[in-house]
Amino acid sequence: MEGLPTRIQLVEVAPRDGLQVEARALDTETKLDLLTRLADAGHTVIETTSFVSPKAVPQLADAEDLLRALKRRAGVRYPVLVPNERGLERALSVGVDEIAVFASASESYSHKNLNRSRADALAGYTPVVRRAKDARLRVRGYLSMVIADPWDGPTAAATVVDCCRQLIDMGCDDLSLGDTSGVGTAAEVDTLLTALAEGGVERTRVAMHFHDTYGQALTNVLAAMRRGITTFDASTGGIGGSPFARMAGGNLATEDLLWLCRGSGIATGVDLDRIVETSHWLGEELAHELPAHTARALRDRAPER
Amino acid sequence: MEGLPTRIQLVEVAPRDGLQVEARALDTETKLDLLTRLADAGHTVIETTSFVSPKAVPQLADAEDLLRALKRRAGVRYPVLVPNERGLERALSVGVDEIAVFASASESYSHKNLNRSRADALAGYTPVVRRAKDARLRVRGYLSMVIADPWDGPTAAATVVDCCRQLIDMGCDDLSLGDTSGVGTAAEVDTLLTALAEGGVERTRVAMHFHDTYGQALTNVLAAMRRGITTFDASTGGIGGSPFARMAGGNLATEDLLWLCRGSGIATGVDLDRIVETSHWLGEELAHELPAHTARALRDRAPER
Repeated sequence: MEGLPTRIQLVEVAPRDGLQVEARALDTETKLDLLTRLADAGHTVIETTSFVSPKAVPQLADAEDLLRALKRRAGVRYPVLVPNERGLERALSVGVDEIAVFASASESYSHKNLNRSRADALAGYTPVVRRAKDARLRVRGYLSMVIADPWDGPTAAATVVDCCRQLIDMGCDDLSLGDTSGVGTAAEVDTLLTALAEGGVERTRVAMHFHDTYGQALTNVLAAMRRGITTFDASTGGIGGSPFARMAGGNLATEDLLWLCRGSGIATGVDLDRIVETSHWLGEELAHELPAHTARALRDRAPER
Repeated sequence: MEGLPTRIQLVEVAPRDGLQVEARALDTETKLDLLTRLADAGHTVIETTSFVSPKAVPQLADAEDLLRALKRRAGVRYPVLVPNERGLERALSVGVDEIAVFASASESYSHKNLNRSRADALAGYTPVVRRAKDARLRVRGYLSMVIADPWDGPTAAATVVDCCRQLIDMGCDDLSLGDTSGVGTAAEVDTLLTALAEGGVERTRVAMHFHDTYGQALTNVLAAMRRGITTFDASTGGIGGSPFARMAGGNLATEDLLWLCRGSGIATGVDLDRIVETSHWLGEELAHELPAHTARALRDRAPER
């Protein structure tokens, strides 16, 4: 299909962005099992855990134990989320080689999620990223609410461009732009990505991170692909979402994205059947139905190709 | 967004294609209420019921009563499904002015759903359509399994083109092409629509009808829009699907399509808030959670724009 890439890079976020909002705590062994399954399926970038305060996210309180026990596989990157210098020191103490920092393109969400203004949050990351780069870590910059914010309304594309530039200037190697509340639609994604290109943000640095709150996630991926984006965050089973109740939508499901890619001739290196199997297993571990369509369809014996 | 239409026509299929697979029977009054709500929301084409055998689809056994009681609104079309000449006579007896016939592009589904070969089914519709046109009815031709069939595998685009031509030649005014099992993806839709255009099937005659079994429905709409299709079937709440268990995916949800259109500047004439309200009401009438994302998100107080 005209304008579609022949290959995309997936960033699997279920172990961190997915699990962090799950009510049922998984033990470290089960998380290791999940990481193994995801790597076995062919994932090469797996967001592994978070070094935020264990009080804020109890599900990921075992970050050090998890990293110490993890048998890292050659060719697989295991980034972790880091909120500040203290989190970075914790991550460095267990030998991570890639971190992600997370800012917001909107003021309200920055205050709610980070307890700081957007500008203060970005400024606060500058020494974190510098220290990480000094330690030769790869650094990803997350930016939330790039389309709109539930409290502030639409996010100006110019603001997103400015935040992207700041993240790159402080040393981020690449960016993940999140439509955190999932309100965005294809034309809005197209407009944002046009503004980013015009603003000089290289598309090879940009991943898109969509939520399926309004059923738009995969459609937005298609729109982004047509603007040259080739890296997408996705979560096996579609688990995840914001801890704030008003933004309840799950992440884009890895298996639904893989279904699109397989049918449309876009290589990912990730095996659909193994992801579906992992999704079924994860649903049992979490003891609830997961939102992914494809895993449910195949479990219910919907037609194969 | 480049390549997107400024306006599309929706065909609301919840009262027929949606309800026919629902376990809980709605009474005629409730169906009339549904039709009123859908017209109040701005729908101008509402597939109303079916004149198939009441034994085959007990939910729609009240087709005559429903049509007699229906206060048809100026500017709103109320097509009904008709399987054969007997069904057409029943429909004519209550004064319908638009019918739809339904064929399959694949052999196996034709046998399972219509108990006849594809060729026999198409031949059987010829006198039905002729009689309908003689009676000055508008006629829509449904074609199922245009991407693949669960039993036969991929459907050749040339076969779809041939079936479309036969339906047009026998007098169908327009067509609705269904990815009935929901397996199709964006590039496959693109390929099919390219073949249809090359085969001389006018795109203004073609509606697309997608199911969300694998979460691809809305993404396929976007792909079809970019190929010039401007009519789409959708079902409020996302209800519907095939009576065959192996094809369990619901129809594309009207409210999810409306969310895309509102955000992307595509006019529909249909009011999102009223459809969401109708979806909530319908879920209560049917006593189960409906698959539409947008209705659930707004019920759960997910962020508005």
